Amino acid sequence: MITGTTRFTPLLAHPSRHVRTPGVFNAECAARGLDMVMVPLDVTPAGLAATVAALRGVANLAGMVVTIPHKGAVAALCDRLTGAAEMLGVCNIIRREPDGSLTGAMFDGEGFVAGLRQEGYEPSGKSVLLVGAGGAAAGLAHALAAAGVARLTIANRSPDKAEALASDLRAVFPGVNIGAGPADPAGYDLAINGTSLGMHEGDALPFDAARLLPGTLVAEVVMQPDVTPLLTAAAARGCRVHKGVHMITAQVRLLVDFLA
Amino acid sequence: MITGTTRFTPLLAHPSRHVRTPGVFNAECAARGLDMVMVPLDVTPAGLAATVAALRGVANLAGMVVTIPHKGAVAALCDRLTGAAEMLGVCNIIRREPDGSLTGAMFDGEGFVAGLRQEGYEPSGKSVLLVGAGGAAAGLAHALAAAGVARLTIANRSPDKAEALASDLRAVFPGVNIGAGPADPAGYDLAINGTSLGMHEGDALPFDAARLLPGTLVAEVVMQPDVTPLLTAAAARGCRVHKGVHMITAQVRLLVDFLA
Repeated sequence: MITGTTRFTPLLAHPSRHVRTPGVFNAECAARGLDMVMVPLDVTPAGLAATVAALRGVANLAGMVVTIPHKGAVAALCDRLTGAAEMLGVCNIIRREPDGSLTGAMFDGEGFVAGLRQEGYEPSGKSVLLVGAGGAAAGLAHALAAAGVARLTIANRSPDKAEALASDLRAVFPGVNIGAGPADPAGYDLAINGTSLGMHEGDALPFDAARLLPGTLVAEVVMQPDVTPLLTAAAARGCRVHKGVHMITAQVRLLVDFLA
Repeated sequence: MITGTTRFTPLLAHPSRHVRTPGVFNAECAARGLDMVMVPLDVTPAGLAATVAALRGVANLAGMVVTIPHKGAVAALCDRLTGAAEMLGVCNIIRREPDGSLTGAMFDGEGFVAGLRQEGYEPSGKSVLLVGAGGAAAGLAHALAAAGVARLTIANRSPDKAEALASDLRAVFPGVNIGAGPADPAGYDLAINGTSLGMHEGDALPFDAARLLPGTLVAEVVMQPDVTPLLTAAAARGCRVHKGVHMITAQVRLLVDFLA
């Protein structure tokens, strides 16, 4: 029930038709008895700065949750960043403080790792291929390193961006073998799509599924469609698969905690 | 259930704690099976233009409903005005067209008159005192004249504003006796508070309740509190009263029609 006292948390996305966070977020708020509601707003990259500036002045704004393609750009619009967001310069949630200032944080990575554990998979000690070096992928890389994976290879269309991310992470996690490398999943314990490939019909696969071996767990950040072409191809190769939606169901508690 | 396809309709207000429209609007959408949701946004007058400009770019924005104190200022931010909004230069709803342009309309007056009729009171032929000449009051004045009241007196703290509104309305409704006058309810069939007085504790009454005679119907546009000090005083004088909430319950169908 939305009333005059309800706090507003928009989800900034572009496009927004594919988002699944509002359903999970609003159910979590209802379960906790919190008078807060999330509605998706389809905001273009060109309109992001003006939208964030305007929302900053909305007194009943709890914060904003941010997804593709805004996670990098929005970090520059915050007054301060905390935790992984500060290191990575990306964020997926902003809290509006009582003085109207904005604090950015990044829970995609923690949410992804929590989702793996929720599904019974412990990433500690594993070898991991992560495709992508954008906002979401950077968050995953940070959290996987923090969770103690043994080896992390970051594969990206622009290899320089992958190497820059790997270099930043090596400085923080010297005990993890982190590097840039090709998008070849053969031999990894865990292969992750950290890009938006699979969200739109006709997208290429993030890596060649024919190179998968059955021992690899294949995981997604794309949550719409629920089962992406990558997950279908991986299952056909005999791999265990992990849907993108788990990143949100496990993460939404962290998001609500941050705003409540 | 809010999903990635839900269309957003903010209610722009300041303050927003008192608004009751979201509950009625969202119930109407649910009853019609419309995938649209209203959330109040507390936007200051200083922030209004930037907020409207930013929301104009939101692809899943159905429109905006606008209430105190923004009904006048927001009209100037529309690309076009229709009906009563065009004549009065005030609006309480904006529709976002597919090309991103904004069409403003004003349904407060029609909603108020529909609310009177819904409660069994026909204003045609009646003598009416209306206190206020702001955005909401102007809408009421227009709709009461259109409904065929016999006499309409507009009383306002700044008499010039009341006279300007009366003059504009006389040009459109030559058959109605419309003028500016004192806020004295004695002898009117219908006496209406068209200001925000009564919304905040300690507000003065919009007119002297001791001057009420029992034959007068006393009506409100303030809907929070549900029963204002004016309505309490009027009931104590033996008058029939008409709550502010009826303006919304009768109007919300018009608002949803305009956006659907």
